[in-house]
Amino acid sequence: MSSDQLSTIFHALADPTRRAILASLTTGEKTVSDLAEPFDMTMPAITKHLKVLEKAKLIERSREAQYRPCHLNPDPLKDIDEWMEQYRKFWEASFDQLEDYLKQLQSKRETNDE
Amino acid sequence: MSSDQLSTIFHALADPTRRAILASLTTGEKTVSDLAEPFDMTMPAITKHLKVLEKAKLIERSREAQYRPCHLNPDPLKDIDEWMEQYRKFWEASFDQLEDYLKQLQSKRETNDE
Repeated sequence: MSSDQLSTIFHALADPTRRAILASLTTGEKTVSDLAEPFDMTMPAITKHLKVLEKAKLIERSREAQYRPCHLNPDPLKDIDEWMEQYRKFWEASFDQLEDYLKQLQSKRETNDE
Repeated sequence: MSSDQLSTIFHALADPTRRAILASLTTGEKTVSDLAEPFDMTMPAITKHLKVLEKAKLIERSREAQYRPCHLNPDPLKDIDEWMEQYRKFWEASFDQLEDYLKQLQSKRETNDE
């Protein structure tokens, strides 16, 4: 996973239409017209988004059928998930701190109630 | 978490220098000069990157000290982690399929050895 590949994936995800296209592929493969339908966009605009997703390898297009349906490729998302690993301890730590704080509040309240 | 906020976070992460800045903040808060040091970049170029990270709320700058040190804010990364949740089943499924395939290979080998 080169640094440039990660940038290409993050760039592809930095757009609400492209994320919506990905989400709609979670239910199975779709043709370009199927994908274009929910968006008020021209075909060239949708095709441009698909090319960005294809470059990031987030979608793949079948070469078999004439209408070349698109399907989701989860591998680049897994790469991001692995990149995220180094940061996970930070919010887990914050959550633990919050839990400690709530416990302190609770024990203070119990002391006051006595 | 609005769709635009997610786009701003993904956009901020779509650059190797900005990801390196974030990684260097995992060891603690740093001044702008500390952050600029490992990169062969001008101060205005680094400042521009910091502004993109700040807009995405990935870093925060202290208002207390005169040199305004930067620190990491993990919340936007957590938002991405939550967004990712809907896709996790895909690579977990692929991993399960791989495991099944390896088990089949193994049992085939055992049958051949008999």
